Amino acid sequence: MFCQIIAGGSPARIVLEDEHVLAFLDRTPLFPGHVLLVSKVHVETLADLPDELIEPLFRQARRLSAVMETGLGAAGSFVALNNRVSQSVPHLHVHIVPRNRKDGLKGFFWPRNTYADDAHADEVAATLRRSLDGPST
Amino acid sequence: MFCQIIAGGSPARIVLEDEHVLAFLDRTPLFPGHVLLVSKVHVETLADLPDELIEPLFRQARRLSAVMETGLGAAGSFVALNNRVSQSVPHLHVHIVPRNRKDGLKGFFWPRNTYADDAHADEVAATLRRSLDGPST
Repeated sequence: MFCQIIAGGSPARIVLEDEHVLAFLDRTPLFPGHVLLVSKVHVETLADLPDELIEPLFRQARRLSAVMETGLGAAGSFVALNNRVSQSVPHLHVHIVPRNRKDGLKGFFWPRNTYADDAHADEVAATLRRSLDGPST
Repeated sequence: MFCQIIAGGSPARIVLEDEHVLAFLDRTPLFPGHVLLVSKVHVETLADLPDELIEPLFRQARRLSAVMETGLGAAGSFVALNNRVSQSVPHLHVHIVPRNRKDGLKGFFWPRNTYADDAHADEVAATLRRSLDGPST
């Protein structure tokens, strides 16, 4: 689906395009101005993004997040990507969404939980550290 | 607050540290393993992130998103940052959260809206394009 937009075969309201990435309006936005930023090379998740595309993709994400305020007058922005779960299209896409206070978005970030106890939290942190000790990618 | 963690003055369960960034467990996680990734240099929002830190920060975000699956056995991950609105601490931090199907997170991404009409969507896209025509940052 996004590859068809990139190839020009599907209509979209293009916001930004360069050698590596394309950004266009999400057709069912959280709020008007909600943009999807994709790499032209088809990669499924962030983990699959090649080294040389990290900077080009997130530089444009930075630029788009700024323009939510400077261009649309939003109070802030939300920048997010879903890998596999809640990922509606299996082509890496970064959501850049204008945000305003009391905009009705209760948010992904509540309710929060706590760890059962310190030992549980220690164990999870240790598991992550151990898993990261493999080859640095 | 995050600067105190970076300076070693506040306790945190460190998951990853390099020259540029630090990652540690969120104390009130969406799910166990929820990590916050911060740049050691204090910047408030993504728009404030210096050019030379884009790649180092998001390379580690990529790595952490992968380890949610390989290390914690999650089905996927959620990578997000809030600029100003819903940003609890005014120091840029990337949330990396393990996700699983039916994990109870209804999600930030619903309900969606639609544009009032095509003209409205065209106008928003044009505003964004115009705003991006300024100096490329």
